[in-house]
Amino acid sequence: MSNNNYFIDNRICQLLNIKYPIFQAGMIWCSPWNLASEVSNGGGLGIIGAGSMYPNILEEHIEKAQKATEKNFAVNVPLLYPDIEQLMEIIVAKKVKTVITSAGNPKTWTEILKKNGIKVGHVVSSKKFALKAQAAGVDFIVAEGFEAGGHNGRDETTTLCLIPDVCSSVEIPVVAAGGIASGAAMLATMALGADGVQIGSRFVASKESSAHVNFKNAVIQAEEGETKLTLKQLTPVRLIKNDFYNQIIEAEERCASQEELRQLLGRARAKKGMFIGDMKEGELEIGQISSMISEIKPAKDILDEIINDFFNNLKRIGLKD
Amino acid sequence: MSNNNYFIDNRICQLLNIKYPIFQAGMIWCSPWNLASEVSNGGGLGIIGAGSMYPNILEEHIEKAQKATEKNFAVNVPLLYPDIEQLMEIIVAKKVKTVITSAGNPKTWTEILKKNGIKVGHVVSSKKFALKAQAAGVDFIVAEGFEAGGHNGRDETTTLCLIPDVCSSVEIPVVAAGGIASGAAMLATMALGADGVQIGSRFVASKESSAHVNFKNAVIQAEEGETKLTLKQLTPVRLIKNDFYNQIIEAEERCASQEELRQLLGRARAKKGMFIGDMKEGELEIGQISSMISEIKPAKDILDEIINDFFNNLKRIGLKD
Repeated sequence: MSNNNYFIDNRICQLLNIKYPIFQAGMIWCSPWNLASEVSNGGGLGIIGAGSMYPNILEEHIEKAQKATEKNFAVNVPLLYPDIEQLMEIIVAKKVKTVITSAGNPKTWTEILKKNGIKVGHVVSSKKFALKAQAAGVDFIVAEGFEAGGHNGRDETTTLCLIPDVCSSVEIPVVAAGGIASGAAMLATMALGADGVQIGSRFVASKESSAHVNFKNAVIQAEEGETKLTLKQLTPVRLIKNDFYNQIIEAEERCASQEELRQLLGRARAKKGMFIGDMKEGELEIGQISSMISEIKPAKDILDEIINDFFNNLKRIGLKD
Repeated sequence: MSNNNYFIDNRICQLLNIKYPIFQAGMIWCSPWNLASEVSNGGGLGIIGAGSMYPNILEEHIEKAQKATEKNFAVNVPLLYPDIEQLMEIIVAKKVKTVITSAGNPKTWTEILKKNGIKVGHVVSSKKFALKAQAAGVDFIVAEGFEAGGHNGRDETTTLCLIPDVCSSVEIPVVAAGGIASGAAMLATMALGADGVQIGSRFVASKESSAHVNFKNAVIQAEEGETKLTLKQLTPVRLIKNDFYNQIIEAEERCASQEELRQLLGRARAKKGMFIGDMKEGELEIGQISSMISEIKPAKDILDEIINDFFNNLKRIGLKD
């Protein structure tokens, strides 16, 4: 079997009609149509991040992605989105083929989306939520570990511990997320039983990402130990340590109230940091694996590197005759 | 190449003259001479946990292990141990071949041990400490992620993120620890670049472990989400959630002083839980991967299962002709 058909029986590739079981995560402020279409054209699954888009903006991004690729791409929808009905209407009307939901109850929308012929995945951070998502009828799970950037689960289960637990509990395909930015890490999670991977931080530092260049530079400069899961009294979120992060820590250390923390967080902090580029006062959501990312590159090059790295490491550790 | 000589060029196997690059962690209250000798006789590296032993007790355990196996075994020494000089004298006098140090500065003892022909490894939780340990002259690194049981680093770097960062930074062999209880996880960390693995929690629930049977039962019953890294204001430690854990959380949530936390912790909490079997008031140090451990078994069976699981998963994910 050559590299070309290694993934031929892969459940995620078959389900979503893609060449490689590699998703580019649909991240707020970072995942526009052209990032998604580049990844899909390269054989992975590009994902538009709807969480930071008004409905009309999402519509525009879907239309542009559809012009830029004939391949499957997805939209990520945080279920707590205020205008969720409008968003879902657009997704159905535009005949998007795949939706990945997160941050909410998968029961609410899964059936409606599936009735419209859409394949549905749901992001979870624990075995318990994986079982609930499966019971809600989703087609696949994205299981995301503690090391992932942005919002995260309360159990703090790492990818290495989460993947085998989820894979041995559900029947549907499992995509591993959190801590994956290389082919070696993709191979590692597939050794644990995952059917594929979702990669976020590495694509934040892509040429096509809509992250502000200041944020991209912060990602490639981050070293080990420079992100932390914080704001656990509100919703846990992994951030790069900056002035804003230090303000949170200072408040938490003196047992500030939830209300004070909520005021400190305020509104539009993530946009300020990730999209507008305020490295001091902005909220900079990124994964621990940013320590291993050192260069801004075109998405297609990133994808090709991951695939090559996957097969090189497979050869390195493989059984030899 | 058959399974029998897959590890023939492995740097850890060559350095320590062992058949499989699998360490059984030297854990306080859980790692006596007979656990170590069983693992060493099975082809791994058994490790006596000196951290919970008076010097004369350690001497006895070393003597018994030497009678029970001709193979290499090691002693784990936390460098903050109060009678460290006495401990090291015994280790040198008894001609122990391998020492793994932790919790302290590797500069202090590495040279002395190496002059006595002892191979020295040091446990680290970050790239920075890995580089320091290498500079101190240790022969190998044990790099331990956030998911590991017991005391842990402040950066909270997970095994999936730590291993590639450490492996690409040091020249000496790297043993991965934290979150590993199966051959699949061993394969995963070797895909990331590790030369071998150190396995703790799985061996706590072995027949030979000196953990109290109540604690062993708690480990096999623990589900995902039932351990947590806590006591971060003193020294971060991963525990099973029990009454004692809830008392810590209650104190932390009202911003209790370090002094109050220290008093709450008190003395001999770990012994009370892990060795005496008080599941309510004891400190129960265990890794996140206890969620995947479901049966108390002889150490030799555990080792054999890990090796079989490693090769089965390697065949499953391997390139096929």
